[in-house]
Formats: sequence, C-alpha cells, structure tokens
Amino acid sequence: MAVNYQLPTPASLHPVPGITLGYAEAHIRKPNRKDMLLVVLDPGTRAAGVFTQNRFCAAPVTLCRNYLEYTMETRALIINTGCANAGTGDIGMTNARATTKAVADALHIKPQQVLPFSTGVILEHLPMDRLLAGIPHCIANLKPDGWFDAAHAIMTTDTVPKAVSKQIQIGGKTVTITGISKGAGMIQPNMATMLGFIATDAVVGPDVLQAMVKHAADASFNSITIDGDTSTNDSFVLIATGKAGHAQINGEGTAEYGQLQLAVNDVAIELAQAIVRDGEGATKFITIKVEGGKTHAECMKIAKAIGHSPLVKTAFFASDPNLGRILAAIGYAGVNDLDPTTLKLYLGDVLVAENGGRAASYKEEDGVRVMKAAEILIRVELNRGREKCTLWTCDFSYDYVKINADYRS
Amino acid sequence: MAVNYQLPTPASLHPVPGITLGYAEAHIRKPNRKDMLLVVLDPGTRAAGVFTQNRFCAAPVTLCRNYLEYTMETRALIINTGCANAGTGDIGMTNARATTKAVADALHIKPQQVLPFSTGVILEHLPMDRLLAGIPHCIANLKPDGWFDAAHAIMTTDTVPKAVSKQIQIGGKTVTITGISKGAGMIQPNMATMLGFIATDAVVGPDVLQAMVKHAADASFNSITIDGDTSTNDSFVLIATGKAGHAQINGEGTAEYGQLQLAVNDVAIELAQAIVRDGEGATKFITIKVEGGKTHAECMKIAKAIGHSPLVKTAFFASDPNLGRILAAIGYAGVNDLDPTTLKLYLGDVLVAENGGRAASYKEEDGVRVMKAAEILIRVELNRGREKCTLWTCDFSYDYVKINADYRS
Repeated sequence: MAVNYQLPTPASLHPVPGITLGYAEAHIRKPNRKDMLLVVLDPGTRAAGVFTQNRFCAAPVTLCRNYLEYTMETRALIINTGCANAGTGDIGMTNARATTKAVADALHIKPQQVLPFSTGVILEHLPMDRLLAGIPHCIANLKPDGWFDAAHAIMTTDTVPKAVSKQIQIGGKTVTITGISKGAGMIQPNMATMLGFIATDAVVGPDVLQAMVKHAADASFNSITIDGDTSTNDSFVLIATGKAGHAQINGEGTAEYGQLQLAVNDVAIELAQAIVRDGEGATKFITIKVEGGKTHAECMKIAKAIGHSPLVKTAFFASDPNLGRILAAIGYAGVNDLDPTTLKLYLGDVLVAENGGRAASYKEEDGVRVMKAAEILIRVELNRGREKCTLWTCDFSYDYVKINADYRS
Repeated sequence: MAVNYQLPTPASLHPVPGITLGYAEAHIRKPNRKDMLLVVLDPGTRAAGVFTQNRFCAAPVTLCRNYLEYTMETRALIINTGCANAGTGDIGMTNARATTKAVADALHIKPQQVLPFSTGVILEHLPMDRLLAGIPHCIANLKPDGWFDAAHAIMTTDTVPKAVSKQIQIGGKTVTITGISKGAGMIQPNMATMLGFIATDAVVGPDVLQAMVKHAADASFNSITIDGDTSTNDSFVLIATGKAGHAQINGEGTAEYGQLQLAVNDVAIELAQAIVRDGEGATKFITIKVEGGKTHAECMKIAKAIGHSPLVKTAFFASDPNLGRILAAIGYAGVNDLDPTTLKLYLGDVLVAENGGRAASYKEEDGVRVMKAAEILIRVELNRGREKCTLWTCDFSYDYVKINADYRS
C-alpha cells in the first residue's frame, strides 16, 4: 500500500476549463481495465513538455518532441498503458504516427496536434487493431470532470491513482491547476517521470510554458528516485488553455509568473511524491536533504548515492539503523575532494555522525525510534558551501522483487 | 547457495613458501566462529595493494595506504571480521594502530610492518579487549598450510569460503600463487573488493608488484558488481615472498613478468568471480560483455548500467526475458551520443535486438531457454569502435532483501 497517501476523490479534482477527458477499456494488454485515455484541448491551448534523456527513448517520445517543436497549438493527448512502444524501431514510429492520425481524423484536427504517450512493457509492438478500436470509446465518454477516471486509466503497476488539484487567484480571477501522474517502478526520472500531465486554464504567452515545465520538473519529478532506472518513456507535459480570463502572463520576471510557477510546482511535487509513496513495494517515504555543498550537482550526487543504495534501502525496510551504510554511500558518491571529517549526518532530529565517526551523543534507541516511522528524513550537512538539494525516495522490500520478478507473467 | 561454485579443499591450496597463517575465534561480533586471521611473512617479502576509493574509507585502509607507502618490508597482515572499523573517526585510527602495535610486539617487528584489515558493520568500534586477546591464539596455530582455514576466517555474509591456488614454471622453477577473498554484499569494488589477498613465492624487484596488483585488480575485482555499493573497506593485496629461486623479475616488459601477471590475473579473476557466485541471494551468474565501443570507459558505463539495474536483475531472478529492461539501461547509461539503431543485443547465442528494436529472428522461447540457465551471457555490440569490457554480476532475489534487512539483527 502507498505510504501515507491521501487518495484523491472525484470531487477534489477541479475541471480545467477548455479540457475534456475520456477513457476506454481497450484490452491493450489485459482485459477489463481502463487502459486508454484521450485528453481533448480547446483551440488556443498551449503545451510544453520535458522528456526522458534515455537514448533508447520510445517512439511516442520522439514524436512528442517533434510535434511540440513544430506545432503551435496542441489539441489532444492520446495515452495507452500495457505497451511502452519502446525498443520497437521503425514499426514503433509507424504505429505512433498511425495513432495520432486516427485521433486527428476523428477530431478533425491535424496529426501534429495530437501528442501520443505509451507506458508498459518495452520491446513489444502496440496491438494497433485494439488501440484504434479504443479511440471512439474514448471520444464517446469525453467530459470535463473526467480527471478521476483519467488518473485510473494511466495506471500500470501503480496501486493508487495519482491526481492533485489546486486553485489560485491571479488578477482577480480563479485559476485552476489539475494534474495526474503514474509510475511505480523504473523511476529515476531524468527530465520527467514516466507520465505526468498538469493542466491549467491560466493565460500564458508563447515562451512561458517551456520555462515553467522545466522549473517544475526539476523541483518535482527530477527529484525523486525509486530504483535508479530511468525509463524510456518519461514524459511530463504542462498545458494551459487560456480560459481563466486574467491578463496574459509574459516572461519569467513577473509576479503573476511567480504565482503560477509556485502553484504548478506544488501540484508537480505532490504528484511526484505520490509516485514515491506508491513506489513498488514501498513501506517508507524517505526525504533526503543534502545541504552546504559547493554545487547543486554535488549535493544531488550524494543524495542519489544514498537514495539508490540497495543496502540503505533494505536497512530502511527493516527499520534497522545500520547507518554506516549511509556514510558508505556518501563516501562513494563521486565527490572526490569530500572531507568525511567535516560533514554531519542527521536522521530526523538525531545527530548520527560527525568528525568522521559516530556522534558521541548518538544512542541506538534514538536511531530505532526515527527508523520506525513511515516518513523519514535523512539530512547531510556538508559544511563546504551554500548549495542544497532534496530527493524523495522509498525503501526496498521483498515486494519490490516480487513485483518486478512477476511483472510480465 | 553460490552459483556453480566449486568449493576449494585443503589439498587444493598450495602453501606459499615464506608464509604461515593462523586464525582465532575471538568473538568480535558473534561467538564460536573464526573471525580473526594473522598472516606472517618471512623477511624479504614485498607487498603492494589497491584500496577503496570511498571517501569514507575505514581506518585500517588509511593505515595500510600509509604503511605501504613508507615501509619497504611488510611482515604481517592482521584481519578481523564482524566490525569494519569504518566511520569511527579518531578512535578508529587509534584502535587500528593499537592492533598493529600488539601484533608487532608479539612478533618482534615494527608496527609499520603490519597491515591491518577489518570487515563487517560500519559505524561501530572494534572490541579491543577481545581483538587483542585473539592475537596470541592466532600466533599459536600459525602454519604454512593454513589457507583453507584462512578463507573461512575472513567470511562475513559469505556462504562459501573463497580460495584459489595455481602453480606455474618460471625459469625452470615452480612458482606458487595462492589467494583468498571474501565479500557478498556492498560489492561494486572501485579499486579492489572488500578483501582479497594473493600471495606468491615469485622473486620480484621493488616496483613490479604495484603495477601487477593494479593490472590484476582491473581485470578482476574492478570488473564485478553485486549491488553497486562500493565498500568503505575494499582492499586487495598482492604479496611476493621471493622464495621460488628463479632470477628476479624486473619491469613490466619481460616475458617472465607477463607469465606471472597472467597467473596472478587468473587467480584474481577466479576469486572475484567467486564473490559474484556467492553474491547475497544470487541464483544466476551473469557475464556482461560490451564490445565495439569508442572507449573502455563507455563500455564499462553501459555494462554497469545493466549490471546495477534492479529491474534487469529481478527479471533474471524470475528467468523472465523482459529484455526491454536491458535496452532501457543501455539507453540511460550516460553515453550521450549513442545511436540505438546501430547496436545489437545478444542473450547467449540469441540476437535479441537490432535496428533500434526487436530482431526479426528473435523468438520468445529462445530468450526463455537462455534465461533459465544458471550462467548467462549478455553481449552488447555497439558498432562504434574497438574497445570492450567484461563485467560479472548476479541477479537480485528475495534473499538479497532478506539478507540485508536482517544483517545486523
């Protein structure tokens, strides 16, 4: 079960003016489950995205990048689970194009205005007959308050749907920000998580969204890790329909930009944390803060070394304060001039290590107390600069192995 | 149980002239197990070592580096399990020094001639009373044919002792090379594995051993990974007693150097592979070959991305040819100009992927056949250069989690 996760309800998710959503049970991989989602966007909508840096990126990712570069107006997203359409060569590109064309024909728009997304097993081809047959079903149930079903329709090994909604005021107008995400394994996003979509009715100028989606990704999906595996399909898209009626936001410097960025970040962080809370087999939600570094990059190196270490993650699963494993991870993180005698390691409020060894004040029972909680903070104070970072991760349990050993079977 | 591992026997391990070994049951962490080893070296012995690059390296590692740099003649090694003496600050250094002094006093040599090694739990202090009390017991049972017991005395979570012995002819004389190693978790050696010791009676000049130990480490311990965790205590030491009676080997260029290096590499590779075969919870022994790269470093990046991926490792545990996970790992390995359409992926003798997707000839049953074996070869042909590498690793099972969640308890 997801760690300390507040399930969304249909009522908690505000519709975003200018957007309707419809799903299908298309039997992409398994029967009788929502496995396709169509999101239809009103004319005038802007979209921007960030995508996986995996060199083996999926065909739909290649197509999304391409379409977003050359298309000013995105009008639809089409998403399937069950098959990632990655490692599928030329046939994969043909299938992704055929999917966008079928959606475009049905909606009387251009294929380049349709962004395709796939998630699921790699190295297998899309079942095109069933996928194309699913599109009319998606269209048939399009509705503005489809966000709750949409969050279900993009789940794979997720145990809970992930959706967050928020409203703010800009220029006296109510602006809605609603997003969904999915992902529970193969999660060390390097640009964005497997799938994340956030939509708002804010009114933004042409260059605003790309900056905003990048900032939001860095603050959220790029700051989580479950298993260190960067997916072939990571995609995070930010959509603005421009229906909210306030004056258009242009440029990063304005107060309104700041307001909107903050709200988008909040939604993105909550969606990203939801992915970690629902990490495959997760029983603990772990926040790693590395502070006092010379650069953000070195802080993140250390945070990721801790967050990826199977030894650290299994110790947290066992609630065993075998904290030397954290020191070992800090030591091998690749910060070559790191002085182990000047850093401090805290577990929650407990000082664990300083001066290159165990803190004189540290008592095993304090470590046990912190480790037993479902939410744990690891804080490393490097004492060599002013940069810092935060990484969210989870523990490593029997169930992680079980889920991933059984995934295809 | 270790994968396809041939247990050593006492008779299979040749004594190395000039070396005696003695162990103790010193109750460092647990009672009634061999947990200390003393290796005594005749005058005239040379030693060289490579050590962990972890910045949080253990006190004995610091002392070993120091002593090896300034001491021409090493006369003893003292090794304990149960406590790593890492993350122990100034007290750790004091304890490591006190250990070498006690051994030196008992053997009438200098502390700088004694190399200390520790392995076990990090962040705890050595139980100095029990450790010092163990030294006379080690001395009391010193014997030339102590290698089999020695291999047992350095085990921690190892399920089998690791020892290899080999004899070659140099200049008409028989030269013996015998080695032991230990390690089953926290294994991604970056210089050398947790503990590896190889001794020979070959006669070598002063600068030969340091080159030889480095080459041997790169070919063996630096080419294995179990969980990607680089230990605080990795140490690999090569010892030459000079008793074999052939003409002294000087410099890397000679035929005799080549002969000895090859034999030392063979022993080191077998010891390193033994660590992988006995990897915590391992059920498969996996060889990853990456060929046709521009540089050795980029080949190793890709091999390690595959070898560290929890998703790949759990798929191998399940014998499930979910081979897209390997493509994903290749894609995120960090080789930024990698072209996924020109590489080929083989599983054993089966071509799995080419042209950016599944090979037309690939059949699932062929993948299943290869995956079911206990020994599996993954081969990636990059087709962009002439460099290559080999990495040995194991799968990731329930038992890995169990062993590491329970290790201290």
